[in-house]
Amino acid sequence: MALIVQKFGGTSVANTERIFNVADIVTKTAQAGNQVVVVVSAQGDTTDDFIEKAAEITDNPPAREMDVLLSAGEQISMALLAMAINKLGFHATSLTGWQAGIKTDLNYGSSRIRTVRPERIQSLLDRNRIVIVAGFQGINSHDSITTLGRGGSDTTAVAIAAALHADLCQIYTDVDGVYTADPRVVPGAKKLDEITYDEMLELATLGAQVLHNRSVEMAKKYNIDLEVVSSLTRNPGTKVKEVTSVEKMIISGVACDKDVARIAVMGLPDEPGKAFRLFSLLAKNKINIDIILQSIGRNNTKDISFTVSRGQLDETVRLLEENKDKLHCDSITYESKIAKVSIVGAGMASNSGVAAKMFEALSNAQINIRMISTSEIKISVLIDEEDAQRAVRAVHDKFFD
Amino acid sequence: MALIVQKFGGTSVANTERIFNVADIVTKTAQAGNQVVVVVSAQGDTTDDFIEKAAEITDNPPAREMDVLLSAGEQISMALLAMAINKLGFHATSLTGWQAGIKTDLNYGSSRIRTVRPERIQSLLDRNRIVIVAGFQGINSHDSITTLGRGGSDTTAVAIAAALHADLCQIYTDVDGVYTADPRVVPGAKKLDEITYDEMLELATLGAQVLHNRSVEMAKKYNIDLEVVSSLTRNPGTKVKEVTSVEKMIISGVACDKDVARIAVMGLPDEPGKAFRLFSLLAKNKINIDIILQSIGRNNTKDISFTVSRGQLDETVRLLEENKDKLHCDSITYESKIAKVSIVGAGMASNSGVAAKMFEALSNAQINIRMISTSEIKISVLIDEEDAQRAVRAVHDKFFD
Repeated sequence: MALIVQKFGGTSVANTERIFNVADIVTKTAQAGNQVVVVVSAQGDTTDDFIEKAAEITDNPPAREMDVLLSAGEQISMALLAMAINKLGFHATSLTGWQAGIKTDLNYGSSRIRTVRPERIQSLLDRNRIVIVAGFQGINSHDSITTLGRGGSDTTAVAIAAALHADLCQIYTDVDGVYTADPRVVPGAKKLDEITYDEMLELATLGAQVLHNRSVEMAKKYNIDLEVVSSLTRNPGTKVKEVTSVEKMIISGVACDKDVARIAVMGLPDEPGKAFRLFSLLAKNKINIDIILQSIGRNNTKDISFTVSRGQLDETVRLLEENKDKLHCDSITYESKIAKVSIVGAGMASNSGVAAKMFEALSNAQINIRMISTSEIKISVLIDEEDAQRAVRAVHDKFFD
Repeated sequence: MALIVQKFGGTSVANTERIFNVADIVTKTAQAGNQVVVVVSAQGDTTDDFIEKAAEITDNPPAREMDVLLSAGEQISMALLAMAINKLGFHATSLTGWQAGIKTDLNYGSSRIRTVRPERIQSLLDRNRIVIVAGFQGINSHDSITTLGRGGSDTTAVAIAAALHADLCQIYTDVDGVYTADPRVVPGAKKLDEITYDEMLELATLGAQVLHNRSVEMAKKYNIDLEVVSSLTRNPGTKVKEVTSVEKMIISGVACDKDVARIAVMGLPDEPGKAFRLFSLLAKNKINIDIILQSIGRNNTKDISFTVSRGQLDETVRLLEENKDKLHCDSITYESKIAKVSIVGAGMASNSGVAAKMFEALSNAQINIRMISTSEIKISVLIDEEDAQRAVRAVHDKFFD
């Protein structure tokens, strides 16, 4: 008998038919002799409807009350799913975040789980119940309801799996696993049977959008076997674990991120502390920096380029212009029509020539590289946005054909 | 500075405009120097929508999960109201039933409040917060969510007022008080400035439907000043208290209940225990009896007549027919086209001739009385349904013109 945590997103419980599909998956897992804990998101458009209701009242709702409102969404879906499971002849009990012992920090809107007290879930499992837990929500030390922000239900599932020492945490989505590239862009993209936590983290950061980063980080920390699987096809999905057992591929995927803008600060004095002053200014204003590149300029100056998300471009440029004198730089330039293409793979570290192979593929496709950034298991290049799809296909074909 | 509990029903918070109307009432009360606790129901049709969602899944939802689902309704409305009050520049904090310390018994669907632990509400009031509490819901000793059944939000408001020793509990509805008769039937009906708990209880039982009985019972027990007031007109409403200060009117109202059916069990042996056997059979089957009348029949027999709600008529007749032999009765007759007209008034006890005055009014209107039942502060008569409106008007005119 195994203990399995299964997480279902909002589209998986969007209507009565889909709720019964989920109930079928859950009860079949239980019937096979497993203990099952289900983590469920709010139904389809519920969250958007709530946000709209709040927007009718105020542009600036108090974060605490927004969490009270949003958390009602999972309370609705978990009750309906419990009813469906009971209808199929199994005993299910639903628990809100606080009932399931999910304690968070004090932030509203994007709270982080501090601890999970799994006693109540465990005692229900011991009495042969299927336990349904509201994803995305918890309670803080003031006994006020909090929500976990984007991807929160994935994090709830992994945190519960960790607290219960579950054998497996399955994340059901509308895709049937993690692919070597976006299948909509690269027709030859292959589904991966397995991937390491680190590879999954790099891919999540790079915009693969299958699992939320925080959930993968937590799974890695507590060594929880994750599986990404489709609630519609029910085919075997992709397993995410510490070490993959299959023969290691050099790279596990090609990702593309178009939410990128590049800013260059030109002609900074080549003196100690200048870069620090620049990035501490940005950090203070909560601008998230991705790739950084420093090059030597003329006349004892240096140029620093970096990337930010497009939503933060205007604010960043405004900030820099306002502080131009303090920074002692000559000029500030920026461009937004660029994209970041990356390859990720744990096998990269022990295989030389991976970067060269990627650059060769881009060169053959006549694609100009604007910036390069590398880590232990990742190589990213910045290119023109219009070349993005061609670049992903060229790199993918080079490694996987 | 007074502490005031204000309760608003579902129609009062049905949309954004109405929510701001409520926020305006609440903040004006606070601005006048009062501490305010608001108890709020689910928005307009929310509860019906939830019941429909559940019905799509199963005819027989587990009561526990139904309460989880329904209680999300007040969580939505309380968050929206808190946002509106904050928008108006006041600090409001919303609390679910369990957060507000409302502990109930173990029943789902029609739970009763056991205790209210008001510490959290009190501490928020001490910090100058307007506190919004979800009506209709609480938590049982298993830490599971319960709902209080019909009229539950009124009961929540009174229970909180009792626990906080509030100075006043205002029940905002879409009528502007308690009338001497239904204004739709009797054009000359007058709004009462004051009414006693006992009178209100009799009127509620008799179908006036302004306040739920349980809330009035609780207000009487803890001596809470209640006020029924309209959230739309905002005129002074009707105060419900232990002793009314105005010169006592002989009667405070005329009520009519058409949800009545009469059953007669004829020819029971005139021996001890026969009536007990009849009514214990009905009690065992959860048939609620209202008026009972026993008369002497022929040949050492007696006839017992009583009334039930029309919804229970068929079941009651079936039960009696099945047990006819055990009851040793001759025959069972029934009729459903009847109505009960009642006058209620705490002044009745000290004023003789009230019953005679009522019967005179009915006699002058040529209305035949089928049964009579009296209590300390109430006189009810059973008449033909078709005479009901004429009877209410005739009696009302006799006492109030």
